[in-house]
Amino acid sequence: MAGNTFGSLFRVTTFGESHGPAVGVIVDGCPPRLPIAAEEIQRELDRRRPGQSAITTQRRELDVVEILSGVHDGLTLGTPIALMVRNQDQRGGDYDEMRTKFRPSHADFTYQKKFGVRAWEGGGRSSARETVGRVAAGVLARKALALAGDVQIVAWVRRVQDLEAAAVDAATVTTAAVDANIVRCPDAALAVQMIALIDGARKAGDSLGGVVEAVARGVPAGWGEPVFDRLEADLAKAMLSLPASKGFEIGSGFAGTELRGSQHNDEFYMDGPRVRTRTNRSGGVQGGITNGETIYFRVAFKPTATIMRQQQTVSVAHEDATIAGRGRHDPCVLPRAVPMVEAMTTLVLADHALRHRGVVGDTR
Amino acid sequence: MAGNTFGSLFRVTTFGESHGPAVGVIVDGCPPRLPIAAEEIQRELDRRRPGQSAITTQRRELDVVEILSGVHDGLTLGTPIALMVRNQDQRGGDYDEMRTKFRPSHADFTYQKKFGVRAWEGGGRSSARETVGRVAAGVLARKALALAGDVQIVAWVRRVQDLEAAAVDAATVTTAAVDANIVRCPDAALAVQMIALIDGARKAGDSLGGVVEAVARGVPAGWGEPVFDRLEADLAKAMLSLPASKGFEIGSGFAGTELRGSQHNDEFYMDGPRVRTRTNRSGGVQGGITNGETIYFRVAFKPTATIMRQQQTVSVAHEDATIAGRGRHDPCVLPRAVPMVEAMTTLVLADHALRHRGVVGDTR
Amino acid sequence: MAGNTFGSLFRVTTFGESHGPAVGVIVDGCPPRLPIAAEEIQRELDRRRPGQSAITTQRRELDVVEILSGVHDGLTLGTPIALMVRNQDQRGGDYDEMRTKFRPSHADFTYQKKFGVRAWEGGGRSSARETVGRVAAGVLARKALALAGDVQIVAWVRRVQDLEAAAVDAATVTTAAVDANIVRCPDAALAVQMIALIDGARKAGDSLGGVVEAVARGVPAGWGEPVFDRLEADLAKAMLSLPASKGFEIGSGFAGTELRGSQHNDEFYMDGPRVRTRTNRSGGVQGGITNGETIYFRVAFKPTATIMRQQQTVSVAHEDATIAGRGRHDPCVLPRAVPMVEAMTTLVLADHALRHRGVVGDTR
Amino acid sequence: MAGNTFGSLFRVTTFGESHGPAVGVIVDGCPPRLPIAAEEIQRELDRRRPGQSAITTQRRELDVVEILSGVHDGLTLGTPIALMVRNQDQRGGDYDEMRTKFRPSHADFTYQKKFGVRAWEGGGRSSARETVGRVAAGVLARKALALAGDVQIVAWVRRVQDLEAAAVDAATVTTAAVDANIVRCPDAALAVQMIALIDGARKAGDSLGGVVEAVARGVPAGWGEPVFDRLEADLAKAMLSLPASKGFEIGSGFAGTELRGSQHNDEFYMDGPRVRTRTNRSGGVQGGITNGETIYFRVAFKPTATIMRQQQTVSVAHEDATIAGRGRHDPCVLPRAVPMVEAMTTLVLADHALRHRGVVGDTR
Repeated sequence: MAGNTFGSLFRVTTFGESHGPAVGVIVDGCPPRLPIAAEEIQRELDRRRPGQSAITTQRRELDVVEILSGVHDGLTLGTPIALMVRNQDQRGGDYDEMRTKFRPSHADFTYQKKFGVRAWEGGGRSSARETVGRVAAGVLARKALALAGDVQIVAWVRRVQDLEAAAVDAATVTTAAVDANIVRCPDAALAVQMIALIDGARKAGDSLGGVVEAVARGVPAGWGEPVFDRLEADLAKAMLSLPASKGFEIGSGFAGTELRGSQHNDEFYMDGPRVRTRTNRSGGVQGGITNGETIYFRVAFKPTATIMRQQQTVSVAHEDATIAGRGRHDPCVLPRAVPMVEAMTTLVLADHALRHRGVVGDTR
Repeated sequence: MAGNTFGSLFRVTTFGESHGPAVGVIVDGCPPRLPIAAEEIQRELDRRRPGQSAITTQRRELDVVEILSGVHDGLTLGTPIALMVRNQDQRGGDYDEMRTKFRPSHADFTYQKKFGVRAWEGGGRSSARETVGRVAAGVLARKALALAGDVQIVAWVRRVQDLEAAAVDAATVTTAAVDANIVRCPDAALAVQMIALIDGARKAGDSLGGVVEAVARGVPAGWGEPVFDRLEADLAKAMLSLPASKGFEIGSGFAGTELRGSQHNDEFYMDGPRVRTRTNRSGGVQGGITNGETIYFRVAFKPTATIMRQQQTVSVAHEDATIAGRGRHDPCVLPRAVPMVEAMTTLVLADHALRHRGVVGDTR
Repeated sequence: MAGNTFGSLFRVTTFGESHGPAVGVIVDGCPPRLPIAAEEIQRELDRRRPGQSAITTQRRELDVVEILSGVHDGLTLGTPIALMVRNQDQRGGDYDEMRTKFRPSHADFTYQKKFGVRAWEGGGRSSARETVGRVAAGVLARKALALAGDVQIVAWVRRVQDLEAAAVDAATVTTAAVDANIVRCPDAALAVQMIALIDGARKAGDSLGGVVEAVARGVPAGWGEPVFDRLEADLAKAMLSLPASKGFEIGSGFAGTELRGSQHNDEFYMDGPRVRTRTNRSGGVQGGITNGETIYFRVAFKPTATIMRQQQTVSVAHEDATIAGRGRHDPCVLPRAVPMVEAMTTLVLADHALRHRGVVGDTR
Repeated sequence: MAGNTFGSLFRVTTFGESHGPAVGVIVDGCPPRLPIAAEEIQRELDRRRPGQSAITTQRRELDVVEILSGVHDGLTLGTPIALMVRNQDQRGGDYDEMRTKFRPSHADFTYQKKFGVRAWEGGGRSSARETVGRVAAGVLARKALALAGDVQIVAWVRRVQDLEAAAVDAATVTTAAVDANIVRCPDAALAVQMIALIDGARKAGDSLGGVVEAVARGVPAGWGEPVFDRLEADLAKAMLSLPASKGFEIGSGFAGTELRGSQHNDEFYMDGPRVRTRTNRSGGVQGGITNGETIYFRVAFKPTATIMRQQQTVSVAHEDATIAGRGRHDPCVLPRAVPMVEAMTTLVLADHALRHRGVVGDTR
């Protein structure tokens, strides 16, 4: 499988460089007869868009999506759905230094080393701009997923640097609460502090990282495959494929390793006709397959590599050099990572829903 | 892609239930003319084997590997290599309760729910016994990888519950040091404490979790693919596909999110003719592609679900019930997880080495 | 995808060399809860087996199948089903010349050239013995297919050299009629002539080719995918992957190209509630998707490459040489190709049935 | 794998309906640093374009290709190359009848049956217009293939109805000779007759089928994989995935089945240092792997389904009906099929070249 395709039955292939003509995606395997309008995709792209608030990068990307194929009279056809967004804000001038020097902790050097050539403006293919296609595809995946039940996927900013919103209730948190503030943390009081922290970093020309948490509620028991395509394995891959991500944990995660088995196990009980677990340290998956409890996991995002400070580096000609930060930067990727995490979660679940239906024959 | 296959060009498909006739693997895409003997595979299987020491489960698995195909006169043929290990220790009597009740935090319930049928003895397909095939395949992957240079892959137990070997030097740690004690922690003093801790848990009928760390040294720059098959994404998937794993982090991981960009970025410098980074918070990958620095990451393993205590659960007939622990159990999966983590790391790297060579044409 | 795997959701991976320890297959993606017994697989393997009649090769292969995994209490588990057949009749003595010389129109030279090594006894991986795994997997595929309706797949020998059974009725031909004689041609009178023809070739140390025809009746409309995985494309690949096959045609095939559109088009009409076509030159597929009419196609098999005559060739050491035919040979592969063609047809249809159900949601 | 993707390492995914906004392709896995200009792609699209001569459909498709990604300063980047062609000639008026009635031997009915919805104008996804993406991708594949040597791929019209150009020399035929006339038959005298035949069919409102032959010269020995991805299997799939194709044969094909083994086998000899075969009934592949001889095969194309005559059919509402031919039609798809066959051949070979290099390590 080539590296720009994700999924088995519900399958997306993204394309595009940061400063090339366009970015986009082909969605293959989307069920037919789903109603879809460009506006629905647009709405989600706007959540991902830079320049949407004071604390994100000011790069203005209008990000107008065009549906090129696969939709007829407002319904999906069952054929590949190609979605394209033209790149518009190509401020080449800002980027001259990128041509001759490798930016620290960016992918400039590794792309050059791998391919012997690179689209040096703005990171090219390694730019977060690539995620436009993922977020667009996620809208279709959400429609496909709706065929299998009322699955709710919500992500939010759990932590910025050391400000942690530990009290958010995964069972009830809503997208409305997440989008109620520009940092996308549903803890309103903490959100104010996070915004101040990010704004401070922005003014200091520095950047911050943090953690996004996500839940999927209403996923039926039985999705996920033995053994390599365990649901958590596909989620981990999905999340680690996002720019700037450095870690993934599901359920009790790293902290759970400090418990004993007698403390950690999720005991079963009958809740009317339904098998439930009293605790949910498993995070909704056991042996790679969903058990009907809420799926929840966390993703670590490093501080943005682009900072407005002078750093040591080397040139393309292999000489030691310094590189200055200038122009615009995104001091914290976390708020914009929220729709990306949601999109990737949706892609994983939609694919597993279809796979389960294909082989086992229902979605229970 | 079906769920029991891993990899693109170097591809493994495992089979087998814990108490069925056999477990094994087909390796497809292994380069030809590699010398291989069953003994080499056997040696690695013995590292994975239960009953190898006082602190692992006493299930005796002789685990004698047989090469069924793909090897001729001691050389790989370029055709599929099938490896099989017969299951021998089928103590059905111990397992009667598994037939009628779901063990907490095992996959009994989810397999039953997904498939409507399950091999109830000992976890069937969800048993760690499935990893026999992975470990066997890893030996071949290591040979394939050697074609691309001197890549050294070493994993070890970094933490058991709260006992953490934080001082192990990733640049120099060796397999010999890891295998010098039964807990596979190269910090000898801490190893003694870990063994005592595990032994205590065993006696208490309880279990422990922890963290395995792994390094890959000598990986050339340029491996990994944009964008979904970033090397760290494939590593994350590989690790989260292991039984009992709950988290993955690469480089600075979750802790790194508390740094600022100015603290976190890895500055480049020229080390003679070679581009290096002064720090390695990236963990050897930038934008999903290796940069020539050491790859290192950590995997969280939950405490073993099997404990020797009575727990609440439900029966297959959907009645509340209690389940007793009895017989043998593995109080801590960590020591045996070490060869599994190494095997999966090797599979990921071998596959990416071949993919890089296929598309770009060398392995630099 | 590696070359020894076939299918998307219903997926088979075969392994084994002609004279290695074993041949076999892993079936991944087989629906759960299908009853299966080794005897059912054995029965089909016996149809494929050499030495079954006077007109096939006298190599005695007992071909006893063993189910290694994926089946529990006689039901499929939804996990990988590994099937193995040990190789038994290893008459190495007959094969000495194969080590040093390339047999004309065999794959000895190409395997050596590709891999730089080969299992020289009896063709190794390129031997028709590899199809044991396919035929075994086909039995499971037939069970999976039965979930989607009463699909009947029948293949038969249509032509041996120039003896053509043109009058067989694709609408009614049965496996019983096919298996009623050893040449597997349901035209009893012609079968007698074919057997005599083959027997003559055998005595002359020569070999014959011919054409196998196959039908699939009862396939619902709607299977097959745009655009590369058109049903006929996957059938063509399946058939051309069989040893000794040189051509494939569906429906009107090559002969249909001599008609005009006005003669060739299949007009629609209503047959009660069902849309039917008055003719079926399309062969049951239009635009790659089944239309509910009978699928039928033909496969060309060249005369067996092994003959009992002296031929010019070259040695492994790159010197001109002669090679003598001796020992046993199969003067005509056609009778044994019948179960192979049926197996591959079944694999294609089962996979498309599951894919259709996965993405579109039913099998209509 | 989803149905709109072809290839393993060199991988194309096409999108687009006949009368939707655009058609196109993403090429993933194209080697980096290949020079490519839109004009080169355009030139090949012009060979495929309708309306290019008096004997093809008069639908005017300007087919201006735009490179959306993956190319920088005229060089491929190693990232996905998205190519798009806007649809322009949307004569909806001509197509009204298509909305309510199924055209005989088109895919209108099967798409409706499969998906429950369809882009009824002009065949939608099943239109030959989809092949724009394949032909465009073929230009990149040809560049990738050039890395492996001087491979020449030439296809031509061998037969129109019963007019057969049997004397074309596969060893020497050139694209220049093929393109020297509008029917793309390198036998100039026969081409005149073919043109007259097609023109007659056009005037009669009827259509013709025929056979395209193709050769690939200069392919090194060793490409192709055991056992399902035999080179001829992948070629067969590629060809049967083309609209209107009904058959494929390689080397001696169906006719070869009338020979005896002693007549059919290709004897080896040493030609200086090189192993050659005196005859080439194998068609350049033995056991699925190339032997260094010329690859040649033939593809059957049925007469175009669209004719200018009244035909019996049924309506979408399931009533018997008649459908009139009107407007424009393509009386013979053969001339335009030539670049399609070449493109698909190139895609197959490029993919196998990369796969061979990836696993075995060179291209000899």
